[in-house]
Amino acid sequence: MAAPPPTRPHRLLPLSLGLFQGALLLFFAIFVTYDEPSARAEDGNLVANQLYGIFPLFQDIQVMLVVGLGLLLTFLPLYGLSAIAHNFLLLNFSTQWALVLQGLLHHFRHGQVHLDLHNLLTAEFAAVTVLISVGAILGRTSPCQLLVVATCEVPIYLASEWAIVTRLGVLDVGGTITIHVFSCYFGLGVSKALFGAARQPVHPKETPTPRSDLLSLVGTLILWVFWPSFVAVLCQPGVAQHRAILNTLLAMSASAVTTVVASSLLERDGKLSPGHLQNGSLAGGVAIGAVADMAVPPVAALALGSLSAVACVLGFRFLTPFLARKLTLQDQCGIHNLHGLPGILGAAASAVAILVASEDTSGSPFSQMSPVGGNASEAAGGRWGDRGAGRQALCQAAGLVVAIGGSLLAGLLAGAVLRLPCLARPSEQLCFDDSLYFNIQDQAESPGSGSTAEEEALALKERV
Amino acid sequence: MAAPPPTRPHRLLPLSLGLFQGALLLFFAIFVTYDEPSARAEDGNLVANQLYGIFPLFQDIQVMLVVGLGLLLTFLPLYGLSAIAHNFLLLNFSTQWALVLQGLLHHFRHGQVHLDLHNLLTAEFAAVTVLISVGAILGRTSPCQLLVVATCEVPIYLASEWAIVTRLGVLDVGGTITIHVFSCYFGLGVSKALFGAARQPVHPKETPTPRSDLLSLVGTLILWVFWPSFVAVLCQPGVAQHRAILNTLLAMSASAVTTVVASSLLERDGKLSPGHLQNGSLAGGVAIGAVADMAVPPVAALALGSLSAVACVLGFRFLTPFLARKLTLQDQCGIHNLHGLPGILGAAASAVAILVASEDTSGSPFSQMSPVGGNASEAAGGRWGDRGAGRQALCQAAGLVVAIGGSLLAGLLAGAVLRLPCLARPSEQLCFDDSLYFNIQDQAESPGSGSTAEEEALALKERV
Amino acid sequence: MAAPPPTRPHRLLPLSLGLFQGALLLFFAIFVTYDEPSARAEDGNLVANQLYGIFPLFQDIQVMLVVGLGLLLTFLPLYGLSAIAHNFLLLNFSTQWALVLQGLLHHFRHGQVHLDLHNLLTAEFAAVTVLISVGAILGRTSPCQLLVVATCEVPIYLASEWAIVTRLGVLDVGGTITIHVFSCYFGLGVSKALFGAARQPVHPKETPTPRSDLLSLVGTLILWVFWPSFVAVLCQPGVAQHRAILNTLLAMSASAVTTVVASSLLERDGKLSPGHLQNGSLAGGVAIGAVADMAVPPVAALALGSLSAVACVLGFRFLTPFLARKLTLQDQCGIHNLHGLPGILGAAASAVAILVASEDTSGSPFSQMSPVGGNASEAAGGRWGDRGAGRQALCQAAGLVVAIGGSLLAGLLAGAVLRLPCLARPSEQLCFDDSLYFNIQDQAESPGSGSTAEEEALALKERV
Repeated sequence: MAAPPPTRPHRLLPLSLGLFQGALLLFFAIFVTYDEPSARAEDGNLVANQLYGIFPLFQDIQVMLVVGLGLLLTFLPLYGLSAIAHNFLLLNFSTQWALVLQGLLHHFRHGQVHLDLHNLLTAEFAAVTVLISVGAILGRTSPCQLLVVATCEVPIYLASEWAIVTRLGVLDVGGTITIHVFSCYFGLGVSKALFGAARQPVHPKETPTPRSDLLSLVGTLILWVFWPSFVAVLCQPGVAQHRAILNTLLAMSASAVTTVVASSLLERDGKLSPGHLQNGSLAGGVAIGAVADMAVPPVAALALGSLSAVACVLGFRFLTPFLARKLTLQDQCGIHNLHGLPGILGAAASAVAILVASEDTSGSPFSQMSPVGGNASEAAGGRWGDRGAGRQALCQAAGLVVAIGGSLLAGLLAGAVLRLPCLARPSEQLCFDDSLYFNIQDQAESPGSGSTAEEEALALKERV
Repeated sequence: MAAPPPTRPHRLLPLSLGLFQGALLLFFAIFVTYDEPSARAEDGNLVANQLYGIFPLFQDIQVMLVVGLGLLLTFLPLYGLSAIAHNFLLLNFSTQWALVLQGLLHHFRHGQVHLDLHNLLTAEFAAVTVLISVGAILGRTSPCQLLVVATCEVPIYLASEWAIVTRLGVLDVGGTITIHVFSCYFGLGVSKALFGAARQPVHPKETPTPRSDLLSLVGTLILWVFWPSFVAVLCQPGVAQHRAILNTLLAMSASAVTTVVASSLLERDGKLSPGHLQNGSLAGGVAIGAVADMAVPPVAALALGSLSAVACVLGFRFLTPFLARKLTLQDQCGIHNLHGLPGILGAAASAVAILVASEDTSGSPFSQMSPVGGNASEAAGGRWGDRGAGRQALCQAAGLVVAIGGSLLAGLLAGAVLRLPCLARPSEQLCFDDSLYFNIQDQAESPGSGSTAEEEALALKERV
Repeated sequence: MAAPPPTRPHRLLPLSLGLFQGALLLFFAIFVTYDEPSARAEDGNLVANQLYGIFPLFQDIQVMLVVGLGLLLTFLPLYGLSAIAHNFLLLNFSTQWALVLQGLLHHFRHGQVHLDLHNLLTAEFAAVTVLISVGAILGRTSPCQLLVVATCEVPIYLASEWAIVTRLGVLDVGGTITIHVFSCYFGLGVSKALFGAARQPVHPKETPTPRSDLLSLVGTLILWVFWPSFVAVLCQPGVAQHRAILNTLLAMSASAVTTVVASSLLERDGKLSPGHLQNGSLAGGVAIGAVADMAVPPVAALALGSLSAVACVLGFRFLTPFLARKLTLQDQCGIHNLHGLPGILGAAASAVAILVASEDTSGSPFSQMSPVGGNASEAAGGRWGDRGAGRQALCQAAGLVVAIGGSLLAGLLAGAVLRLPCLARPSEQLCFDDSLYFNIQDQAESPGSGSTAEEEALALKERV
């Protein structure tokens, strides 16, 4: 049916992955144990209650990443199996890799690395950045290249997250800056370095069909439903978490409606673009992350959701074609519209919220919150202590700059690595095609079965 | 490919929706704040525990409405994108609209409107009625018309719910009467007034294919799995909630098996009808809502589930064709069979349960329940206090009558509004077709790409 | 289109199912009541908290069985509706049947049978064995035959579970031995007895298409995400449950990555086989069940997950063809590779874990766990009390032997019953075809509609 892919990469993927699995086993055997529960919790009921609190949210996030994001990527009609499988593989590989690095970086000085659900969750957040970034190069890259992206991106994310959250003290409970903005510009950097100045022609297999759009929209809906869990899982339990959930729900709801408005106004005949709906509905969730647990009024969440959706739809309509034309920037899934623009909006909103709250209520956007499980002074003086609202707002801006600059630079470097000759890229003809990565039992390929009348009837029936 | 739809409605949808979003922002900016948590809960752990109790159920319900119901509606093979997207848009619009109306109606006298997860949940319940009602006119109406239905139905639902639950004191924890029966007859009223006496011919795009039936069945299964959360979310936590969950599980299980029995007996060759399975499996969940938290024995839940499934399948087989023939009543999704008939059965069952319980255990179907979080006198004297079981049973019947009568009347009025000339209905030729509402990149429509050999190979491959 | 199926079975299915529903109602009416809550829990909050603990996990398991497993079985391109519907029917029938038997067997001496969520859960576990077993004969059997399998398997499972867990004291919190190994060999026994020595030719409708593989992979992902709930739901709440969840997460993650390695190495051109991915990713979850709550180090969970995935992929590649050739053993879904081999590995791992733990920490793999809600002596002396680690390891092996031997024998007997003349098997021509069990409105079959230009355009459009 087509020329076979180049020979060497056949074994590169399983060998390197297998090697990594071996190293992972070794690392876990030597360093990792489960948390000693007796040291932390005298009361079993406490452990149980903590588990009941976090585990349903953790499961929600797993559904988002494995099922929701996987389905969202199936908009390429002949690339569904690959999109879902590569997403699944990358999630697992990156989480394991992040566990290793987290173990080495954060916990190593204590001798043993203790594993609990919270570690797994933060490792999974590192993996999310990879899943987002590779959206820019979906369909034109081999799994080996995707693994290289993951290998590079996870440590850089951990460093960036440390710089932004720990050093700068940026407030970003839902990962707007640390996850979405970071991964967006990392992915764009990779794409730019990988494809260079060569303009990619429109590929005939790139066009979604109604059926692939439908599955992709189902993925969007799954992400939309569970997004509040993603934003709120790391919040302080109690009032702040409740507030984060409500803010996210409002922002997502406003995004959904505003996307329809914006898409209808921009498209010919007032029709909707499936791509706008698939992405714009989620833009509010990206933007709200940085302000979700702050004491902003509900209208702010609604407005931020609406604005993000407008930015996302405008991005798809004007900015992506512009960047493709002027910078020959390839962004297959439009991650700049879903993660970049709304992320920047969210970061700006967090700075504004901090400034406004400091004027309104003398000091803290958290002033309406009773201290829950935290120390009272924190709530009294705002989470930034005696830093002052103006300085904290500046920190938010600085965090945004660090996230964009660092990730773009690192992404360009990672993209350059992807051009190494040993990492063969699929030929243009075989892009966006599952048959390059999957043994699909094709009627045309199986010589033994012949083409009986029975089979033809089957093929005919299946189409309808 | 086809004549373009009339010109004006192109802008009507985004403009009216945009206007609504603006008004919503204004309303929220002026009136709505988050609940002051300190006023209600001194203890943060209490807030956290309440949240852990309600939030997983809330998420389950979101999955049902967004993913489950959306997929259920994809049985029309060329209308999947529209069905899912319109369902999603209506859910968000109606919830926002209900939040506004609830704020104005119930909370206004307190000056400020306080928003919490419970408000959002009841607003979403109002939206459910819209999602059910529009099932009667699926595929033959424009999104503008659907928004008009939502605009009319939400306030009428709130009024009806107030009359039935607050004034009449009807017991209906799972919304059998207030949600299912109400929305069914509202939808039928709209359909009757909209289509009038014109008999709708069978449309060639109306026939499900095995593939669209499969996706629709997946939607049914998602609804089936999460239905207990829908019924139990507003129950008193503890014993009553546990009982409601068990009753719902039993009723759903009986429905599933009985649907197979009934459908096999009625269809030729003992085969199953996919439509029966998609709807009948859920009938028990509709019916059980009114009695779920009463102290009925388990056998009652099973029997009610079986009966509802039989009623639903018989309705599809005989009643729907009969109503279409005699009353020229158009009911695209068969909402009368899934929501009307089982809802009436459930209302009747609630009256019977109250009467039987009063004879058996001297006074209350709740007598086996220990008072949980409520006042003891309530549990002692039954939830209807000193009203007497006979009177309460009468109230259940009266609630049913109010729900049917009020909704039918209001639906007829709303349907008349849909005939306004500014709300153009899609031409018969373009009914049940995604291409009317979505910019689908059609091979035939894209003039630049031509029909290369590559593309034809793609099209061929995709079919298999 | 094809010869109609034999006449009698048309009515056999609904009549026998209807009879069963009637008997179920009778049984429930006479014997079953809800748990008297007041007898067990003075405090409503306690009931609520217990419910919040178990109910989300219960829902997760429902999603797995109804949606995840259903979708996994849709890899047969023309048999998706039947696979999902039969899975759904069998789950409900088997759960009801298990409730009846459990009621008779375990609770009868107390006069009344008390029903709560825990009973339902264990009944559902009995149903799981049926759903797994019928995977061996998927597509070549009628629903009547499947119901006979369920009728036979549920009581045998209950007896086997009693023998293995209660009598032998085997530790198997996630059902590795009692559910997975048991159901695998039961299914293989049924298949062998049903198909005998006749080699089944490759059927033209047996070959998955990319699209059916995609839906099936989505089913795998749903199962993969929720598997920790399945393993942990019956664990002691608190530390043991936390540990079971973590072990399962690690094993599943290792399985996913290792499956890609193993499949790439074994398949030509280094491509992946969709079937390997669909099954191998879950192998770790099957194996981990027997050791999930033991105090094994994290590396053991990873290693067990990797090993199981390798065993599963090797099984698909070599063992299944070998068994088909040498023993004419038909295993449609490859249940031996997903449930048999990993289950045996998991049982072996549990014996090793017990022996190693006894050497390491003088006595118990549970020594690191604080006693949560259990008696202290249990935790102090290990769960096998004064039995000794060596003896407990032997018990694990004995349990495995009982599960394999008992289920194989019982399966052979049940398979012989399926050959009764009254249970007609579908003709070879009609295997793997939905049209045998569903009234599908086929263009070719409907004589009235003719083949208008409109319809042809519809059919054409739908393909794309």
